Amino acid sequence: MCELLGMNANVPTDIVFSFTGLMQRGGRTGPHKDGWGVAFYEGRGVRLFQDPAPGCDSEVAQLVQRFPIKSEVVIAHVRQANVGQVCLANTHPFVRELWGRNWCFAHNGQLTAFTGRRDFYCPVGDTDSEAVFCDLLNRIRGAFADDAPVQLLLPLLLNACAEYRRQGVFNCLLSNGQWLFGFCSTKLARITRRAPFGPAHLKDVELEVDFHAQTTANDVVTVLATEALTDNEQWTLFQPGEWGLWAAGECIASGRLD
Amino acid sequence: MCELLGMNANVPTDIVFSFTGLMQRGGRTGPHKDGWGVAFYEGRGVRLFQDPAPGCDSEVAQLVQRFPIKSEVVIAHVRQANVGQVCLANTHPFVRELWGRNWCFAHNGQLTAFTGRRDFYCPVGDTDSEAVFCDLLNRIRGAFADDAPVQLLLPLLLNACAEYRRQGVFNCLLSNGQWLFGFCSTKLARITRRAPFGPAHLKDVELEVDFHAQTTANDVVTVLATEALTDNEQWTLFQPGEWGLWAAGECIASGRLD
Repeated sequence: MCELLGMNANVPTDIVFSFTGLMQRGGRTGPHKDGWGVAFYEGRGVRLFQDPAPGCDSEVAQLVQRFPIKSEVVIAHVRQANVGQVCLANTHPFVRELWGRNWCFAHNGQLTAFTGRRDFYCPVGDTDSEAVFCDLLNRIRGAFADDAPVQLLLPLLLNACAEYRRQGVFNCLLSNGQWLFGFCSTKLARITRRAPFGPAHLKDVELEVDFHAQTTANDVVTVLATEALTDNEQWTLFQPGEWGLWAAGECIASGRLD
Repeated sequence: MCELLGMNANVPTDIVFSFTGLMQRGGRTGPHKDGWGVAFYEGRGVRLFQDPAPGCDSEVAQLVQRFPIKSEVVIAHVRQANVGQVCLANTHPFVRELWGRNWCFAHNGQLTAFTGRRDFYCPVGDTDSEAVFCDLLNRIRGAFADDAPVQLLLPLLLNACAEYRRQGVFNCLLSNGQWLFGFCSTKLARITRRAPFGPAHLKDVELEVDFHAQTTANDVVTVLATEALTDNEQWTLFQPGEWGLWAAGECIASGRLD
């Protein structure tokens, strides 16, 4: 299994604090030693840092922690391999261009023997996760001729999630840089931080941050993670089948599949 | 205009020496201050480091210079913007997945008012270069149903290059991780290093490397660059219209368009 981290905010926001907590689970406080990756959207571009080395001692991860990239949408992942060998091509998040935007996907869980239809998007590596992502994009492309607003995509997206979770464990994060979608099949938590901001303390390493000093009164920042990253804040657990869609830090749609 | 750097070798090879020279041209010894990028193939995966900040003082570039990633195919680029603003989405190299492989492209030159057909691959940014890359991949995908060996692709590739260079300056590097293709419309140089290896001295910064100490007798390493990067070795200049294809460090096909 793996751990997911997603962030969506209404202003470019530094993810270093949460990312530092996640990286501890990459081989130190958690067993997810088979690589890690993080995608930061920057305008329409995306910065992707990945390493098949454990997050807790990856030199690239240390750079990311020193280098406060601010972003409105971030998707990160630490991996404990089940399907597919440990190599760069099997490291989440996965990115593909669709309709002139970078779509980014990370998955926690396992879909044993998943086989997508071989179509336009093909997996580069050999994980079930990348095969699911390609299958999902192939469905979207097959159903819509051109750039469709996410509200129109939602029924297709939810049908696909329902199908994938029948085949295994399927917690996922998906974004095209404009919104962040999260689906919980078994385990996912969320928190939305807004004024008045207070201090937050990481569970996985002795580190506290005072968000009040780093934010303005108008900032809204939502974080999704497999497990709560802090131990002094109230995280909400998703129920199995629950999903949400965030833009500019706010939830714009949500629901629960049977 | 911009500067290109490509490397293809028969063993995973450290590009730090050449990359260090190229980065000096990113704002110090050259005017290419509008971003830089480098793609390292690692198996079927690709590591892409990019920054819209000048190469000579980019923190990510310093990481890449400290971090000796070894790769068999590398494509790097420093940018002096002509078409498109300075931002991450406009930073070369560009990457797209085709037939389950990461294809990577960098361009030196300018194709004023290039308009590709809007098709499967769409540009994310607003450079002529990315539009050309998408056009090229759309042609390949339109002509071949599935993974075709590069020898079968060559006629299409060369026809496309001929067409692009009629529209402007078009020096380019292209790879799918298995081979490296280079096309010269106006300016490109190459060198193939093999035993006996000797010392090499960068033109752009006081730095010498003794390749003899870093290589075995069987290593073959070809470097392509807009201009010679060293001042004590014999680089070969491409003629306008000349192209080459390299695999495992060796030239496997070459020619010249009228």
